[in-house]
Amino acid sequence: MKLQKGKNNCIVDVLDVKVGHVTLFEKVDEENTICTGVTAILPHSGNIFRQKLPVGSSVINGFGKTAGLVQIEEIGLLESPIMLTNTFSVGAVKQGALKYMLEQNEEIGDTTGTINIVVGECNDSFLNSIRLQAITPDHAVEAIHNATTHPVEEGAVGAGKGMQCFGYKGGIGTSSRVVSADEHDYTVGCLVVSNFGKSDDALFADWKKKNQDTPDGSIMMIIATDAPLYDRQLKRLATRCAAGLARTGSNIDHGSGDIAIAFSTANKHDHKHTSILDSLSFIRDDHPMMNQLFQAVVESTEEAIISSLKHAETTEGRKGRVLEKAPF
Amino acid sequence: MKLQKGKNNCIVDVLDVKVGHVTLFEKVDEENTICTGVTAILPHSGNIFRQKLPVGSSVINGFGKTAGLVQIEEIGLLESPIMLTNTFSVGAVKQGALKYMLEQNEEIGDTTGTINIVVGECNDSFLNSIRLQAITPDHAVEAIHNATTHPVEEGAVGAGKGMQCFGYKGGIGTSSRVVSADEHDYTVGCLVVSNFGKSDDALFADWKKKNQDTPDGSIMMIIATDAPLYDRQLKRLATRCAAGLARTGSNIDHGSGDIAIAFSTANKHDHKHTSILDSLSFIRDDHPMMNQLFQAVVESTEEAIISSLKHAETTEGRKGRVLEKAPF
Amino acid sequence: MKLQKGKNNCIVDVLDVKVGHVTLFEKVDEENTICTGVTAILPHSGNIFRQKLPVGSSVINGFGKTAGLVQIEEIGLLESPIMLTNTFSVGAVKQGALKYMLEQNEEIGDTTGTINIVVGECNDSFLNSIRLQAITPDHAVEAIHNATTHPVEEGAVGAGKGMQCFGYKGGIGTSSRVVSADEHDYTVGCLVVSNFGKSDDALFADWKKKNQDTPDGSIMMIIATDAPLYDRQLKRLATRCAAGLARTGSNIDHGSGDIAIAFSTANKHDHKHTSILDSLSFIRDDHPMMNQLFQAVVESTEEAIISSLKHAETTEGRKGRVLEKAPF
Amino acid sequence: MKLQKGKNNCIVDVLDVKVGHVTLFEKVDEENTICTGVTAILPHSGNIFRQKLPVGSSVINGFGKTAGLVQIEEIGLLESPIMLTNTFSVGAVKQGALKYMLEQNEEIGDTTGTINIVVGECNDSFLNSIRLQAITPDHAVEAIHNATTHPVEEGAVGAGKGMQCFGYKGGIGTSSRVVSADEHDYTVGCLVVSNFGKSDDALFADWKKKNQDTPDGSIMMIIATDAPLYDRQLKRLATRCAAGLARTGSNIDHGSGDIAIAFSTANKHDHKHTSILDSLSFIRDDHPMMNQLFQAVVESTEEAIISSLKHAETTEGRKGRVLEKAPF
Repeated sequence: MKLQKGKNNCIVDVLDVKVGHVTLFEKVDEENTICTGVTAILPHSGNIFRQKLPVGSSVINGFGKTAGLVQIEEIGLLESPIMLTNTFSVGAVKQGALKYMLEQNEEIGDTTGTINIVVGECNDSFLNSIRLQAITPDHAVEAIHNATTHPVEEGAVGAGKGMQCFGYKGGIGTSSRVVSADEHDYTVGCLVVSNFGKSDDALFADWKKKNQDTPDGSIMMIIATDAPLYDRQLKRLATRCAAGLARTGSNIDHGSGDIAIAFSTANKHDHKHTSILDSLSFIRDDHPMMNQLFQAVVESTEEAIISSLKHAETTEGRKGRVLEKAPF
Repeated sequence: MKLQKGKNNCIVDVLDVKVGHVTLFEKVDEENTICTGVTAILPHSGNIFRQKLPVGSSVINGFGKTAGLVQIEEIGLLESPIMLTNTFSVGAVKQGALKYMLEQNEEIGDTTGTINIVVGECNDSFLNSIRLQAITPDHAVEAIHNATTHPVEEGAVGAGKGMQCFGYKGGIGTSSRVVSADEHDYTVGCLVVSNFGKSDDALFADWKKKNQDTPDGSIMMIIATDAPLYDRQLKRLATRCAAGLARTGSNIDHGSGDIAIAFSTANKHDHKHTSILDSLSFIRDDHPMMNQLFQAVVESTEEAIISSLKHAETTEGRKGRVLEKAPF
Repeated sequence: MKLQKGKNNCIVDVLDVKVGHVTLFEKVDEENTICTGVTAILPHSGNIFRQKLPVGSSVINGFGKTAGLVQIEEIGLLESPIMLTNTFSVGAVKQGALKYMLEQNEEIGDTTGTINIVVGECNDSFLNSIRLQAITPDHAVEAIHNATTHPVEEGAVGAGKGMQCFGYKGGIGTSSRVVSADEHDYTVGCLVVSNFGKSDDALFADWKKKNQDTPDGSIMMIIATDAPLYDRQLKRLATRCAAGLARTGSNIDHGSGDIAIAFSTANKHDHKHTSILDSLSFIRDDHPMMNQLFQAVVESTEEAIISSLKHAETTEGRKGRVLEKAPF
Repeated sequence: MKLQKGKNNCIVDVLDVKVGHVTLFEKVDEENTICTGVTAILPHSGNIFRQKLPVGSSVINGFGKTAGLVQIEEIGLLESPIMLTNTFSVGAVKQGALKYMLEQNEEIGDTTGTINIVVGECNDSFLNSIRLQAITPDHAVEAIHNATTHPVEEGAVGAGKGMQCFGYKGGIGTSSRVVSADEHDYTVGCLVVSNFGKSDDALFADWKKKNQDTPDGSIMMIIATDAPLYDRQLKRLATRCAAGLARTGSNIDHGSGDIAIAFSTANKHDHKHTSILDSLSFIRDDHPMMNQLFQAVVESTEEAIISSLKHAETTEGRKGRVLEKAPF
């Protein structure tokens, strides 16, 4: 039985989650087009460094360059926005998000430790002149400032501007589900940057094989939820993104960095503390609610991918290459 | 584009792989029925300890008790049959397979080191009186002796005798695919013990929700191939089983120990050696053949699960519980 | 600065932890000697299945056959005693501990799910005729029944009966440390089965290279604490066992399955529940107490290993082989 | 028995490995001092992208921000220099190394895929005004250009300029070992950036507790070898760095990102290929040579850390803070 969709069928259905885009598009010369961007996901509207959230990740296929996963695995805390961009801009976006966080928190790197910036990426070099490294740290700051709780613009926008999916134009997609048990209601939202697959791999449509040869690509899948879960459990949620991805038709190709990150907004952990002990509440792993949450991840991931295709308009990129809007 | 099926659409399409079953079925009293078994997969017909094979595994959901994965992860070698049984018989089956290997190899535990026995399991306690621990070490030896290269019997047989899947009778299923490139042909075979899912989860059929409440279950997925691959690459293949599983409708439920093991028959490594150096040949990760192999894993896993349902006959187990044959 | 030792410098300094041994020693014939055993660690004196404890593990070198780690990694709960034995008796001991737990809990495998039995092992085949598989399931039950909160007998006893360490007689060793901060006092205890190393590797003594060639061996390291920690944090503690091990002189040799398991007695989780939510309190990772706990793991692991050598008496095993008491 | 040291007791004893530093030191104002740098390790003198090397890594404690580990884990290939710097300069150094590699290889991001840049880091904010982000991408390029096969300058230089270790001045240290068996000779070299520990933790010296409170810090450990090993085996080597680290006195503190990377120069893999198959030769895991290699990693890591302390001169950093040369 399919789950109910969230109010806006969007990751921001999870209360207080914000998303912002910066999109770059410019034909530079005959050969080169800048066709890329940055997307920022703010897990809550407060100071993320001072109020950290539990987080987990799953590397489904590690042909990717996402920054920040080592510390997520060890400590299980999210203390920065989750930034998304193209493969060669991870450095610049990391610098920009760092700059933003340093301005917000004068203690970082001075009277307290450092900060773990999370940046995911896909390779948009089919359309984007990625070697030009058009994205600057300021674009990352701008994407953070653009973040709102309004329904997210999808398709060829932000980090999704230059992406390709199933041989058509891919990009940003989002979806959400609501689960309910024992008078508890929780929302699970997913946002993806879709950039993988061949046209005849698609399982949700009957598309012919295209002559145009697109690279393996990648996908970033971000899960937000207000269900109280801790790091190990969020890793379990992130792992289920693979199932949503697989249902669209992906075989998790060699060159596709398929990576999922899941966070919960329900337990915030203060950076500053006076006490030796902290506490958290969490949904029991063996409660049926957990399977509902897993299902919500699978369904919202699958739909977010399809939604990215439905919203992405035909785009012309470098070398005159064109990716068409998917023929739904 | 779907891949071509192997000659018998069966794991033994991979040359020299053998499979054997032992099935136990006995109504003990009003309450108890023994409805379980053992399945042995022999990766080649020679002495497995003396000629080890590269192997990799993927723990998709670790709510499981499979034996032998720690050493597979570290050393990447398979040196025993892969045994499958019910959750409470892992100990007995491990002892039995060990006994068989000790008889074959008088040097083990005497003049050379020990041996890593691999035993996978699912929980068949819905139908089987698992607490009775009916399986003895000798059943494991018998399953090994029963192994042949003939097409595998599927359904309610061997380790699959008591399993349930999507609310119907599950059990053993198998399938295979052939991939081809640059005058190289390779076969990928999959054998599963299916034991997961609710009836209305199924994506390959339009089944109603059943009143009967079955537990989360589990699935073991074994991949065999003659493609020359080494341990890291075989782990990548095993990881793709999750995609085949997901396409049948699984949300990788909490209580479902979903575990995959993949081995290659192409490079054998001698236990005894005179030289410091060994060598291996392997398919390049970035060759398009690798994506075909991934696809072969996904497709054969999905079909093996469905095949297990198609072959499993209605079975009555403990407490008068009946699992019906799936209504295809 | 070195930490303070616990009252008895023993794992049972952690309140309510119990340890029991069964030791087998019998000269069978000219060639064969049974020289092995079982050690059971009960994490608390109640019903372990019904009151589970948070647990974490670290596979430092995975050339080992420990049972139960897959589920520990996924769910982070300990629901059985931790059993220790020789490599070929993992199956029998698993069956025995299972039998014990089934008798205690008639619901397991009937009205509720299965149970994850944890069994660690080292290869004692230098002294013990391991191929004879002298250990039966009943020996495991007996070891559990023998468990008490009295200071643990160390040396050539229980699972340590046939083990070798640094070319001398190894076996069971234990140690503990007390840490203190902000009016909180916690105890960390370690119990090891030592079975690794060459005599001239030792860093704590100036031992000459021995003519006798012993195999790579293994070590199991079990950490108990009453500090409130959850699974991810306990995995961090288990990881630090590698540091204690290294300080004795181990290079973590190829054939040495070096595995650590850490549990906390402070937060118990009921198997049965009426509520969707559970909660836990835990020490903050960034509180200085955490580094003290890490230090306690390192120091108690190192001392437990040395203590195993100090207590293990000269033992004659199969083929007339003798391992001498270490020359302290 | 201790192993023999390499010719220069240095990572560049591994043939064709090159190391280069850029050091920044400037008193900006009363509060701020730039006291940091970049170190580049070139695994061979050819085109690293076009001739990749097998590589493995070990995250001993993941409180760190090293870039590139996700792909190393999946694919096991090194295709860029290994760059070392401070925590907040990972982005800039990644951009710089990327710029260098793009200039060398016009096909990257155009006619072929992207590239995985590896950047390790430690937090030098005790002495360095890390918030100023003084390091630019060009500094990374310069460090690469500075790389030579000459014995490496150690101590307060390059990425080690601002680091602290055991309460004294830390930084760059290096060491090497030679192993030999069956007429095969191999070299193992280690280079570290040491930045961890309290003065009274040291096991190699009898230092008193200092009043000055230094943060947890971190350590990066890079292993080079000409022994033919593949990715899984190199991960095993990297894992042994923990033992060398532990022997100096580290308890692997909470805030210390302790990360090791190991590569082999013996099997190069061409980026371009015409064939589906590749091959490699490797040392058997069970050959005694492997334990010698492990020992070489442990010994060279331990000595590299001590060497970093022996070479690092007293340095004054931000806020007038002084770290003294260690009192050997």
